[in-house]
Amino acid sequence: MDIDLLHTERLDELTENLKIIQSDEVFSFSMDAVLLANFANIPLSGKIIDLCSGNGVIPLLISTRTKAEIYGVEIQERLVDMAQRSTKLNNLSHRIHFLQGDLKDSPDRLGRGKFDAVLVNPPYLPLTGQDKNTNHHLAIARHELRTNLEEVIEASRQLLKVGGRLSMVHRPFRLVDIITLLREAKLEPKRIRFVHPFKHKEANMVLVEAIKHGGKEIHVLPPLIVYEQVGKYTDEVYQIYYGKE
Amino acid sequence: MDIDLLHTERLDELTENLKIIQSDEVFSFSMDAVLLANFANIPLSGKIIDLCSGNGVIPLLISTRTKAEIYGVEIQERLVDMAQRSTKLNNLSHRIHFLQGDLKDSPDRLGRGKFDAVLVNPPYLPLTGQDKNTNHHLAIARHELRTNLEEVIEASRQLLKVGGRLSMVHRPFRLVDIITLLREAKLEPKRIRFVHPFKHKEANMVLVEAIKHGGKEIHVLPPLIVYEQVGKYTDEVYQIYYGKE
Repeated sequence: MDIDLLHTERLDELTENLKIIQSDEVFSFSMDAVLLANFANIPLSGKIIDLCSGNGVIPLLISTRTKAEIYGVEIQERLVDMAQRSTKLNNLSHRIHFLQGDLKDSPDRLGRGKFDAVLVNPPYLPLTGQDKNTNHHLAIARHELRTNLEEVIEASRQLLKVGGRLSMVHRPFRLVDIITLLREAKLEPKRIRFVHPFKHKEANMVLVEAIKHGGKEIHVLPPLIVYEQVGKYTDEVYQIYYGKE
Repeated sequence: MDIDLLHTERLDELTENLKIIQSDEVFSFSMDAVLLANFANIPLSGKIIDLCSGNGVIPLLISTRTKAEIYGVEIQERLVDMAQRSTKLNNLSHRIHFLQGDLKDSPDRLGRGKFDAVLVNPPYLPLTGQDKNTNHHLAIARHELRTNLEEVIEASRQLLKVGGRLSMVHRPFRLVDIITLLREAKLEPKRIRFVHPFKHKEANMVLVEAIKHGGKEIHVLPPLIVYEQVGKYTDEVYQIYYGKE
């Protein structure tokens, strides 16, 4: 299929059978999205939504593991356009749908209590009033300019069925906020996994799964170590990136 | 110094220079206590208190790293007696003091807002009404029979100075309870470390440090892996157990 690439865009191979449109000046996915897609329990059918979907990397990645209807919500029109072109390119437009808009409006637009799973790789960095990324597209994806953790969790609560799962990747320095807000929203944290760049380093990502109205007991999974040594992934991360789909 | 050992008691070497009275039928310390003592930031002076002190292993272990006055509170008379005899044996009675009683009463007995550090290795297991340990001494040490997480955190809050540190070891399945209760008590979690028996296994212990009225940002430390392979400690744990004091 022919797809037009806009200025600065390129076509990357996401897996052997999936391609994705990226641009370093607009949006390219990072390891966070790949690890989140791998971590999440994906229902085989039903409805899944990815919030803060960026260029649509997560809907594309999980599409191989489910027959569910997949939605992606992204506030930046430019990224929704990239995501939609990637979806077409992969012949997935019949079951991956992207919406441009504020995630706060997604329960009203798509229905409350209708989703089996929510995935989200939200902007991590608090607003400081300074040190914001000068690139507008990247700033919105990285800083809590247009949404924040509270809004992400509240929208997820509204979207999910009872028993549905929220899977999120975030930065560990917000761990206490994440856990207390999830419990307040009755999205009970059930599985958590910390990602460490090297085995002797502090965690720099956290993956968490919460179940709407779930029981009060959490599992702390084995640590996920990214690098065996500088420039060499561990077997597990290599497998996640390049293993069979 | 001569110390009488009671029925079932034995004298173990805690370190090269410290001895401790133990009994498998009454109380023997476990790895949890050793890892907690190692994890905690111990102030060089001031006042430190160890709650649920058992046979006093934590006050003895940390005594080599501080000139502070150290208190231990334990509800079981039999264990307080063991702890006091061990303290005498090590010539530490001038700066380690054990009190028998309910930890709830310790702020009234020892003063509110007077402590620089609280350490606690509380009973982990919830009350189920059945499956309690049939040995009464061990049951009290392991199950929430005579205290619980809420009471431990509330007593710690009352005992600590602003800026003082609570260091606790617990089971990861209670992580969400631990974190939400600490924040509610304004004991802000600042450092957390998960302990995994093997690198590919779920965590089976969690070490957490909270600072009274501390800022809202937490560090997730490198994972602590106990065994390299069955029967062989990792270098780090070997160092904690047998390294120099």
